[in-house]
Amino acid sequence: MTIELSPIGVIKNPFRDRIPKGWETVEARIVVNDEWADALHGVEEFSHLIVLFWLDRIPRDSILMRLHPQGCEELPLVGLFATRTPCRPNPIGMQVVEVLNRSANVLTVRHIDALNDSPVLDIKPYLPRGDCVRGAVTPQWVTQLAKRP
Amino acid sequence: MTIELSPIGVIKNPFRDRIPKGWETVEARIVVNDEWADALHGVEEFSHLIVLFWLDRIPRDSILMRLHPQGCEELPLVGLFATRTPCRPNPIGMQVVEVLNRSANVLTVRHIDALNDSPVLDIKPYLPRGDCVRGAVTPQWVTQLAKRP
Repeated sequence: MTIELSPIGVIKNPFRDRIPKGWETVEARIVVNDEWADALHGVEEFSHLIVLFWLDRIPRDSILMRLHPQGCEELPLVGLFATRTPCRPNPIGMQVVEVLNRSANVLTVRHIDALNDSPVLDIKPYLPRGDCVRGAVTPQWVTQLAKRP
Repeated sequence: MTIELSPIGVIKNPFRDRIPKGWETVEARIVVNDEWADALHGVEEFSHLIVLFWLDRIPRDSILMRLHPQGCEELPLVGLFATRTPCRPNPIGMQVVEVLNRSANVLTVRHIDALNDSPVLDIKPYLPRGDCVRGAVTPQWVTQLAKRP
């Protein structure tokens, strides 16, 4: 079974070939194709949106079943689905972004770890009732990773 | 530009042709293809995961640019990207699910509004640091919708 998708827009930011430290606070634009502009009506009333994008520069033949999160060898080897590595069987990126502005078909957002020109697949409203899980538990290695400089 | 995906597994639950009220608490199984079983190692250490799935029974030629959320005519007409309607240009479902158990390639979870046999595209760990936004703001119609019986 093969599933076919078509991008609805593109991400524009300063990240040409890598995602730098501090990406969380960098502004990006999501330029939605003209044909879908009207479907953005009202997204600016949400403080946050979920963006699904295509990791188009990830080679699809270099997937490791298990890896050390973010390449840290002091952390355990875990399955790729336990990590947010971009090297995945279907390399779809997902980020919760902060909405700064919408002007017609262009959204300005913050907090997206995508390379410039990444194709956008979907935009969804962030609904705290289902999307915000207070007290979600993570393994200890996630805490260790967060403490790294 | 066309993007091709292949399912990594399938969702099994009692929802044959519609998502009933109370779906939030119904258990489902995510049966991951054998080839990806090893990539699940460690996902059971997370209390919650993000599941991306394909809404394979949504007709792709019936998309409305604007709609009343959940068909409620007393709510404003908003753009489809301001809603979680399954009728989207790329009908990818996304849910934050609670992990109940993993046994080899089968995850038992709760809180997924997918029909039985929906193809699974990706499984990601839920990381509160980026995924849980406390105090996210939504339009008033979201509050109205939550109050409906």
